[in-house]
Amino acid sequence: MRNVVVGGAQMGPIQKADSRSQAIERMISLLDQAKLQGCTLVVFPELALTTFFPRWYMEDQAEVDTWFEREMPGPDTQPLFDRAREHAIAISFGYAELTPEGLHYNTSILTDREANIVGKYRKIHLPGHSEFDPERDFQHLEKRYFLPGDMGFPVTRTMGGIFGMCICNDRRWPETYRVMGLQGVEMVLLGYNTPSVNSQRPAEGPADRLFHNRLSLQAGAYQNSTWVVGIAKGGDEDGFPMIGGSLIAAPDGKIVVEAKTEDDELIVHACDLDDCTFGKKTIFDFARHRRIEHYGIITEQTGVIEPAE
Amino acid sequence: MRNVVVGGAQMGPIQKADSRSQAIERMISLLDQAKLQGCTLVVFPELALTTFFPRWYMEDQAEVDTWFEREMPGPDTQPLFDRAREHAIAISFGYAELTPEGLHYNTSILTDREANIVGKYRKIHLPGHSEFDPERDFQHLEKRYFLPGDMGFPVTRTMGGIFGMCICNDRRWPETYRVMGLQGVEMVLLGYNTPSVNSQRPAEGPADRLFHNRLSLQAGAYQNSTWVVGIAKGGDEDGFPMIGGSLIAAPDGKIVVEAKTEDDELIVHACDLDDCTFGKKTIFDFARHRRIEHYGIITEQTGVIEPAE
Repeated sequence: MRNVVVGGAQMGPIQKADSRSQAIERMISLLDQAKLQGCTLVVFPELALTTFFPRWYMEDQAEVDTWFEREMPGPDTQPLFDRAREHAIAISFGYAELTPEGLHYNTSILTDREANIVGKYRKIHLPGHSEFDPERDFQHLEKRYFLPGDMGFPVTRTMGGIFGMCICNDRRWPETYRVMGLQGVEMVLLGYNTPSVNSQRPAEGPADRLFHNRLSLQAGAYQNSTWVVGIAKGGDEDGFPMIGGSLIAAPDGKIVVEAKTEDDELIVHACDLDDCTFGKKTIFDFARHRRIEHYGIITEQTGVIEPAE
Repeated sequence: MRNVVVGGAQMGPIQKADSRSQAIERMISLLDQAKLQGCTLVVFPELALTTFFPRWYMEDQAEVDTWFEREMPGPDTQPLFDRAREHAIAISFGYAELTPEGLHYNTSILTDREANIVGKYRKIHLPGHSEFDPERDFQHLEKRYFLPGDMGFPVTRTMGGIFGMCICNDRRWPETYRVMGLQGVEMVLLGYNTPSVNSQRPAEGPADRLFHNRLSLQAGAYQNSTWVVGIAKGGDEDGFPMIGGSLIAAPDGKIVVEAKTEDDELIVHACDLDDCTFGKKTIFDFARHRRIEHYGIITEQTGVIEPAE
């Protein structure tokens, strides 16, 4: 048995006017709850320190940059790292990263139980668009504010297992899980901010959005025989509702725990990494069953090429 | 609107002692039902003409070959093609194929509404094993009796849309759907024979097996915005129970109809191929969102390579 007691720290809304330190205070409070419940790893959402700012159209780069972190930890986030070290809890959370070279990424990190950063990931599948889109009910400007990640999907050995990360829309793409699965991933940590309504199809509401969230996470878990920990920032941010639905999916694809609110809420499960072994050695023994000679276009071809009429 | 009225022709068990013509008689009866319900396409299971013979260990190749078809249509199957032509119903079904060169495949075909074969697929992800395995509760010798398919995952333009096929265990592999998705597939036809119990883990019973079936089909449909038609041979074949659970999943991943029995049963749904468009043009617009520069190991590497300790 290789138990990791995971605390999934769903967060309720963060308003545009809220400060970093207000968010950090809430994260520390969730960390304290997690300590009481014996957690050794706590996972927070995507862009955990601020509102989901890509819904706001901005033209002034200086204004855009106010949503980004130039160092990690920095003055605002240091108290979170300090508390995590004190509790001996590894943490993972997402934030907007501005590099010394001036590059912008939607990033998440993973620390060990001494609060050292041991893993970093930059979001690859950026949804949305880069220019103001009058056809949408609201904006989703991730392609405007972020570059696609440049690190691939790395995995990290820590806490006796193999951990990977992805962020929000990455979870809908089977390639995300497979690239990590091919590196033996045993737990995928992912945060998300998902509007409760599809901005391009108003009829697609929260029930559908939660269904697609579950479907993507459960399939990724099952098809790679890995734990998947998906943690939302939910609730109403300045009039824009987002789904909660944070959940942990087991390596057999089943949901073992799921959030009940759209607010700050800790979901806890003792995840045995050894539960990954059966699937990885039988039905999803990649070495025995995959046939890469027939997968070529997955990596040769980005878009659809239909057969001739 | 581009409606295809699909009849999913689930079949109950075929015993080892049953003849091809007994199976064909049942298939024709399902075809007649489908005609009455206005179907334009009927999908039958994997290895629809015989029992699921890979559960039987055989050493004599001549005996093995009795389960295979040397021509399609052949004398036994011609009546099925004739009735399909008469009803103007396209059909798809699976059978064991022995080629003139002596090669063995687990194959499925698709005809147009004039009973001309317009698509062919040979199963790529063969599950199971090739030698007698005393550790299993029962045998699953697909790797013994079949070669892995050599045709890739081709798609076919017919009936106003783009159709693809896969077979049974293929459905658990996201690569299957993605290779077809990259060719613009709008409907994936797949037959299966799935034991109700995992031969390597008796605790994994029919509820789990049905759950994994649904999960795989729904995820494949959603993530490629395609219809998926999954049709079982179910019920008890000579003491070996198999799940039914035939279903049709819509391009948004939702199940629109599902079989209620483990016996011969027709499920019917009018599938509008235009329902694929929204997903393919928005969240799963591959050309805009996929990042093949980070998918390399999916096609470079068959098995798992873990990071260094």
